[in-house]
Amino acid sequence: MTVVEPVTELHPDRVRLTFEQADGQVKETRVPAGTTLFDAGSWNGVAIDSTCGGHGTCKKCKVRVASGSMPLSPVDPRAFSPEELKAGWRLACRAEARADLVVEVPPLQTRPKAALAGVGRHVILRPAVQKRYLELTEPTMEDQTPDLDRVFAAMDDVELQAPLDLLTDLGGTLRTSDWKVTAVLCDDVLIDVEPGDTTARRFALAFDLGTTTVVANLLDLETGLPAAVRSMLNKQQPFGADVITRISAVMMDPEALGTLRLRAHETLAELTAEVCEEAGVEPGEIYEVVVVGNMTMIQLALGIDPEPLSMAPFTIVAQTLPQAKASDFGLAVHPRAPAVLFPALGAYVGPDIVAGVLATGLTLDRRLRLFIDVGTNSEIVLGSSSRALATAAPAGPAFEAAQIRCGMRAGDGAIEGVRIRGDEVELTVIGDVEPVGICGSGLVDAVAELVGAGLLDRSGKFVLGEGPLAERFGKIGEENVFHLYEGVFLSQRDVRELQFAKASIATGWTILCREFGIEPTEIAQVLLAGSFGSYLSAASAVRIGLVPKLALPRIVSAGNVAGEGAKIAALSVTERHAARAVLDEVDYVELSGRADFNDLFVDQLAFPG
Amino acid sequence: MTVVEPVTELHPDRVRLTFEQADGQVKETRVPAGTTLFDAGSWNGVAIDSTCGGHGTCKKCKVRVASGSMPLSPVDPRAFSPEELKAGWRLACRAEARADLVVEVPPLQTRPKAALAGVGRHVILRPAVQKRYLELTEPTMEDQTPDLDRVFAAMDDVELQAPLDLLTDLGGTLRTSDWKVTAVLCDDVLIDVEPGDTTARRFALAFDLGTTTVVANLLDLETGLPAAVRSMLNKQQPFGADVITRISAVMMDPEALGTLRLRAHETLAELTAEVCEEAGVEPGEIYEVVVVGNMTMIQLALGIDPEPLSMAPFTIVAQTLPQAKASDFGLAVHPRAPAVLFPALGAYVGPDIVAGVLATGLTLDRRLRLFIDVGTNSEIVLGSSSRALATAAPAGPAFEAAQIRCGMRAGDGAIEGVRIRGDEVELTVIGDVEPVGICGSGLVDAVAELVGAGLLDRSGKFVLGEGPLAERFGKIGEENVFHLYEGVFLSQRDVRELQFAKASIATGWTILCREFGIEPTEIAQVLLAGSFGSYLSAASAVRIGLVPKLALPRIVSAGNVAGEGAKIAALSVTERHAARAVLDEVDYVELSGRADFNDLFVDQLAFPG
Repeated sequence: MTVVEPVTELHPDRVRLTFEQADGQVKETRVPAGTTLFDAGSWNGVAIDSTCGGHGTCKKCKVRVASGSMPLSPVDPRAFSPEELKAGWRLACRAEARADLVVEVPPLQTRPKAALAGVGRHVILRPAVQKRYLELTEPTMEDQTPDLDRVFAAMDDVELQAPLDLLTDLGGTLRTSDWKVTAVLCDDVLIDVEPGDTTARRFALAFDLGTTTVVANLLDLETGLPAAVRSMLNKQQPFGADVITRISAVMMDPEALGTLRLRAHETLAELTAEVCEEAGVEPGEIYEVVVVGNMTMIQLALGIDPEPLSMAPFTIVAQTLPQAKASDFGLAVHPRAPAVLFPALGAYVGPDIVAGVLATGLTLDRRLRLFIDVGTNSEIVLGSSSRALATAAPAGPAFEAAQIRCGMRAGDGAIEGVRIRGDEVELTVIGDVEPVGICGSGLVDAVAELVGAGLLDRSGKFVLGEGPLAERFGKIGEENVFHLYEGVFLSQRDVRELQFAKASIATGWTILCREFGIEPTEIAQVLLAGSFGSYLSAASAVRIGLVPKLALPRIVSAGNVAGEGAKIAALSVTERHAARAVLDEVDYVELSGRADFNDLFVDQLAFPG
Repeated sequence: MTVVEPVTELHPDRVRLTFEQADGQVKETRVPAGTTLFDAGSWNGVAIDSTCGGHGTCKKCKVRVASGSMPLSPVDPRAFSPEELKAGWRLACRAEARADLVVEVPPLQTRPKAALAGVGRHVILRPAVQKRYLELTEPTMEDQTPDLDRVFAAMDDVELQAPLDLLTDLGGTLRTSDWKVTAVLCDDVLIDVEPGDTTARRFALAFDLGTTTVVANLLDLETGLPAAVRSMLNKQQPFGADVITRISAVMMDPEALGTLRLRAHETLAELTAEVCEEAGVEPGEIYEVVVVGNMTMIQLALGIDPEPLSMAPFTIVAQTLPQAKASDFGLAVHPRAPAVLFPALGAYVGPDIVAGVLATGLTLDRRLRLFIDVGTNSEIVLGSSSRALATAAPAGPAFEAAQIRCGMRAGDGAIEGVRIRGDEVELTVIGDVEPVGICGSGLVDAVAELVGAGLLDRSGKFVLGEGPLAERFGKIGEENVFHLYEGVFLSQRDVRELQFAKASIATGWTILCREFGIEPTEIAQVLLAGSFGSYLSAASAVRIGLVPKLALPRIVSAGNVAGEGAKIAALSVTERHAARAVLDEVDYVELSGRADFNDLFVDQLAFPG
């Protein structure tokens, strides 16, 4: 995590790779020097044979470097003849790109499975969880090989470790199953030895542990398809709607940390039970979980005091958390299932944003794109495969229901869309019931439409004058309000809250554009993400200045990219490496220390002309 | 673990190293090719500077290769000038010996501490547990380095990992201690961050988890000295005196495994409390434990079914057990303390014997020595730094009290020594009380003295004729007995039991001598080990043929070498590597499959002439 100085050079440490595939397709990409050809291929949907998962042992990931220099790895001479080596053949998983290269990829021996995930990403299935059916030879006086060593010897193409508690049942399992067993591997760890052939059944569970909503995605790792998806409100809700109120709860009561932790665990456990029941999957068949969330949610769920996150200088506990287990999140899935976590760029550009960057492929695409996760804390990433910058904008509580007079969560009765046509105010209401309040997207729509109708001036003040809708204005106490429906109104203060929020976000992307040395109009695409951003109307977002003024088709809803990132990580170890690489590829820009922040912020308070 | 074919070549893959020390001392040793100069020096008491523990980062372990070839390691060019490299300077921890070398060792910059341990071994203190006092800079808006990364950055000469649960208290500790903390490292794992400066206090606990007796040795890692030593009977005793009866208990009752595990944990926990109280040490100041025992004791303590150990083909669960924690043994020491275990050569040449080989330095010494751990299962190792062979001899229950008519454990009232002078039978009795039974060493003495006095013939039959002691013979039931004391006698069957035991052991070392192609008289030293073997009279052991016929000073008691091996492992990571190397250095010879076993066994039944 470094605060960048303005630079003009675009990642001079990147190299250009051209993959020529057997079907004639050519893919070009720029990757950090030192990336293996295997990883670079995988990140770009170029499938290369492999069965060992990139450990240099299966010797299947053969590619030919047709142009450019590629030194031999220690493994190459064992995989190729001298003539082949001379012709440029290398094992892709051991070949680190240090120069521009043209790489020929032979046709696949086995058809790789792939899944569509994230924002149109084509993810080649390479789950960490692998199963192997083994028929072992029984020990004899001539062959007293110990049990664990015998299992390892049957998989000598991978170098495996085993956790100690695996051994308590191992001897019994081998002997009662007549030495016919299925080894369950998670990366290079042997997490179980099951009797008989269970290779057809393996599942992972990807969680998006949101502040408001928690989503569980049960994935069949054989097909890459979701077996069941469920969501529910985070059971931490009674402690506060946003991260700051939950951190405050911990600061006021030392017991609260344990309680909040337990509530998170209960939420995850309940969802686990639901998806298992829906899909007919035993919890013990879930061999890995992925948990994505903002840093506060992750620290709370792990029982790590979040207080330092909430006050200057906003420090997180670790950029990359140590290896976790599913049981650390209170999950009763396979007892030795690991929990995969994403790294964080900072206190407010957390694991959820790194997952979002992975899901959008922001750092893999040559187009310059702007990613905004809109919320109380809004995260903003601007970049392409050449360079990327991230920042966090404290948008304030406009998008949370609590601070808006008639605000409510996006549930039944919430006004989520507003359109003003002449003297008509058309409302879109969730659940097709009488409106009882207004949610975030409705707020943005209402303000945008009032600006469009000339009922709000650029400075954000109601224009109370005449016209067909003048009668909808009124006063609640001392405050001017605009009535959307009987008992549902927009107040002057609500407008101010939204102005502050959108100004903060706009200042964020303006500063990132400055760092890049570009105009906002040069941005190829804006991705609106998160449970709130995904529902915003592109037109309204442009009209209030929340996003740069671009043609509307270039402003797209990216959906729950954090959850998609979690899915992608469950489906592919190569993608996990890509997520870790995001730490090096994306530079963090801290807004609060900047001299130009206040001026820009004031400029952005007004609505665009 | 391989069953060796007879070979004549003596470890052609060893290289000869000559260390020339600054004080003029020269040490010569032969080590396996590939051993680092640092390890080879340490194993031979040649102290070489180092602060990073052999990770190639402190660049202090500078030596000069004065003769012989030593390629550069990747680290060398960063540690030395081109002239120095040309002159042969290398970092010892990265220099793998592949040829005969002469190595100059500069004087130490810091005086290393060393401890005497094992059988006269000089162990240079290099505990895995290290402490570092850190004064960290507080985070600021300009430096938002996360807490864990900040701690790691303060120790950038080592590449550290941290367990997840360390993080729950980390933020609080750093902030309440004003960023002045002590990092506790165990190898490359950061196991704790303690407030303030606690560098003066670090302890480890070495256990010998014997079938009969359990010994705990609390070690002060600052000095290498024992802070307290306690022993007690293994609380598994009610389930049987030897490993076979305990395994039988598990086979008959599935609940017994859990109970036996718990009893082992209770024994270890009680000893821990005792040594802590005696030494005034908090359990949380014990950062590592070492547990040594035979494979049955280790598997039982870890809850791993021991049944396969007890029946052909006698398989252990793993040659090298996965990383264990102190809590796996039920120990409430530091919550993240690791438990260090020794590898096993086979079901009956277990971790205790590998520890014994380490403690005796058998594979480090140029003399050819014979190590015998005498017991129901007797382990035998014959070797030197050139080559070593191990076997297990099923000696039967002669050395356990239960199978001897007047047998008892070596406690108060046990006859432990017998001498016949003319018509006098002199008894040495434990506790200086009336004799009530006879223990193992007394049995060996009694038989040896009766053979010497001509009262037992070579075939093991009582010579009932006349003479001054004839009146001591009598009959109990149908059986001839020799009365040692009122109510304490030696029966003809007792003699037979001992004959079987000693024949089994003698067959073991005879076969190892054959494999070596040597005569038993060429053995330089016999080490009698274990709680039983250490108390045997050398003269009696020779007279009954339990050990080869050598001059008595060459037959020595080695003491509790398993416990000493545990201590050595706690004091030095280099020695742990040496213990692991024992697996490669010692070849296992299985007796039960051999065609020559029965003939040799029958030959050895008779007492020597």
